[in-house]
Amino acid sequence: MTDVPPSKWLVSVDDHIIEPPRVWLDRLPSKYHDVAPRMVRRGKEEVWLYEDKAVPTSGLSVAAGKRKEEFSPDPVTFDEMRPGAYDPAERVRDMDRAGILASVNFPSFPRFCGQVFWEAKDKELALLCVRAYNDWMVEEWCGTAPGRLIPLAIIPLWDPRLAAAELERVKAKGVNAFAFSENPEPLGLPTIHDPNGYWDPVMQAANDLEMVVCMHVGSSSTMPQISTQAPHLASLTWGANRTSGAMLTWLFSSYLQDLPNLKICLSEGNIGWIPYFLERAEQVLDKQRHWAVTGAMKSYTANFGYPDQGKIKEADPMRLDVRATFRDHIYGCFIDDVAGIRCLDLIGEDNVMVETDYPHSDTTWPNSIEHLSKLVGHLPEQTQYKIRRGNAERLFQFTAVEPAGAA
Amino acid sequence: MTDVPPSKWLVSVDDHIIEPPRVWLDRLPSKYHDVAPRMVRRGKEEVWLYEDKAVPTSGLSVAAGKRKEEFSPDPVTFDEMRPGAYDPAERVRDMDRAGILASVNFPSFPRFCGQVFWEAKDKELALLCVRAYNDWMVEEWCGTAPGRLIPLAIIPLWDPRLAAAELERVKAKGVNAFAFSENPEPLGLPTIHDPNGYWDPVMQAANDLEMVVCMHVGSSSTMPQISTQAPHLASLTWGANRTSGAMLTWLFSSYLQDLPNLKICLSEGNIGWIPYFLERAEQVLDKQRHWAVTGAMKSYTANFGYPDQGKIKEADPMRLDVRATFRDHIYGCFIDDVAGIRCLDLIGEDNVMVETDYPHSDTTWPNSIEHLSKLVGHLPEQTQYKIRRGNAERLFQFTAVEPAGAA
Repeated sequence: MTDVPPSKWLVSVDDHIIEPPRVWLDRLPSKYHDVAPRMVRRGKEEVWLYEDKAVPTSGLSVAAGKRKEEFSPDPVTFDEMRPGAYDPAERVRDMDRAGILASVNFPSFPRFCGQVFWEAKDKELALLCVRAYNDWMVEEWCGTAPGRLIPLAIIPLWDPRLAAAELERVKAKGVNAFAFSENPEPLGLPTIHDPNGYWDPVMQAANDLEMVVCMHVGSSSTMPQISTQAPHLASLTWGANRTSGAMLTWLFSSYLQDLPNLKICLSEGNIGWIPYFLERAEQVLDKQRHWAVTGAMKSYTANFGYPDQGKIKEADPMRLDVRATFRDHIYGCFIDDVAGIRCLDLIGEDNVMVETDYPHSDTTWPNSIEHLSKLVGHLPEQTQYKIRRGNAERLFQFTAVEPAGAA
Repeated sequence: MTDVPPSKWLVSVDDHIIEPPRVWLDRLPSKYHDVAPRMVRRGKEEVWLYEDKAVPTSGLSVAAGKRKEEFSPDPVTFDEMRPGAYDPAERVRDMDRAGILASVNFPSFPRFCGQVFWEAKDKELALLCVRAYNDWMVEEWCGTAPGRLIPLAIIPLWDPRLAAAELERVKAKGVNAFAFSENPEPLGLPTIHDPNGYWDPVMQAANDLEMVVCMHVGSSSTMPQISTQAPHLASLTWGANRTSGAMLTWLFSSYLQDLPNLKICLSEGNIGWIPYFLERAEQVLDKQRHWAVTGAMKSYTANFGYPDQGKIKEADPMRLDVRATFRDHIYGCFIDDVAGIRCLDLIGEDNVMVETDYPHSDTTWPNSIEHLSKLVGHLPEQTQYKIRRGNAERLFQFTAVEPAGAA
């Protein structure tokens, strides 16, 4: 247990669950037990089997507590990871140790926004799997520690009406947030600018039910590559690209212009790049919007060999206010980001939260609260409070429960 | 003429030339006059003809002096642009008006690093065209105003030995910088990590001759697209992605580890994103380099479906120092970047320069010096001097000539 008193602990808006083996078996009819997601041992490995997929757990996903020389992307088994990765009671003990008051967790086997169920052949089963995951998340994971473990749902990405219904179903169980893709296009799904408004039912429901749209970096199932020969460490460093693209495509979307209660959260994207891209968005809008609304766009697209987009759903650039749209709709979070904190006023202190990324290799655990103090300890007390806890409680609509009798 | 005295003017390390019609016709044997680059009138348009290409000038490239409502990507003719776009004496008058002491200019018809000659069928002619451009740059463009217009060469990208020879040839004429691609792969050229060291002769020559490798944003002939349906203004805002990728791939390259005098300049990439990516590079290196040098990389690449890279040329991660490598080798520049200036110490005040992007649509002309003062006027005088002028003079190895009898 950290020496910091619980009243000074942080809320982490991005951590990760390694699903325990029976999440789906416990909830699906037995006729599905040989195709539903299930954990089996194969030689020295443990893998998730689901339809024709066999997926091990990467060591980078369960690096918490290991030295840098000890973890790698090589597959690991449950024996080799901290129980806090998959057991909610153990998780809370690990949170206590690092000064983590509350935690929002993303899925692992389903991937960051449930892509694995969208890729499944049997969509009837996949829908049951989505619901089973959400029920497990609410009842077992968060049910273990209300006010400490905060629920995040997944949706059936292949059917926006079913997805809206699932949002309504889990909202009634106290869920205020769900995972979405930073970029649905590489998944083979329509974008948020789809002329036919594919995502309208989902975003309308998110607006009406006040559920946060959480987009984790990597939820497009893409890894940036600077070039096919770029060193992997260089491309890994480039990862927040996906998040900056997500922020910009939403900033210029019609959804944020049309749906006043819609909030998006850029999960594990860090924040140090936000000031530049907000400033740049203002400049581009100021200088280029005049021709962008005229027929001159044809010269632009022809010049770069772009296909005609048709009539996409996008913000009216003549009435788009970049700063106001960001302030009212977009939230970022950081793990370790001196540059972002330096420019906090250029982002907005009401729009920034912290995360600990437990148990991934980037985690600050077990020194999360001390680490945060080093990063933000020089800021005014009220600003620290917002970043540490207040903004997350407001956005995810909960009040964190401080453990009694702790330090 | 600005009221600011010339001793307080700025050096711009990124501006643009619209080549006058006879750059190549004046220098190539007459047998090439019907295939070499030449400007012709076609109805209302003026286009460059070269082999089977016909290329007009985009209005965004010559927006200087126009109101935002007046310019667009629609093609324009010489009559519709300021003479300063193509005439060196007129350019100097425009520079005087905006407080621009000296200016480094990139090509337009050849594209930012001479891609058009690499794409040409007749490589013998293309080589003559490269040389003709460089001769024109030195003799006519910069010859008009020594110490005001600073030369930048292009190279025959298709033959690194010829390219090294061209560097040697133009170095003897006083050229200290050349244009290179931010990412040669989309051009169909080997990357800087090519296992066979395709670019070795060029980078060795750049190192030995102390010639700056200038990589203009867009010199990969790519335009970022967040998705095929993302609003173009969003994707335009995302443009510096290409530059951040270039910075990172070089940071992790073997060239900067092996060639002590090699300097790279990230032209028109702005700087506000640099602090974040430097910090992130340090984090990734610190946490992930241990497994990156072992066989565990195979699990990583397999997990993401990456093809095997083979033995690429890359920095040894165990002895890579991100901050020192940046400080000793990498330079950035900005047009209008509050976030970048706020974090100047995280970048390094010796590595930042200013640009005016004349005559492109992003230009600060005719208020360049006043604009810069607003951005950096609060900094110590010595820091302002470095950004305004000193760093550029040092990197490009020249002493700017202040106009006599000016304000």
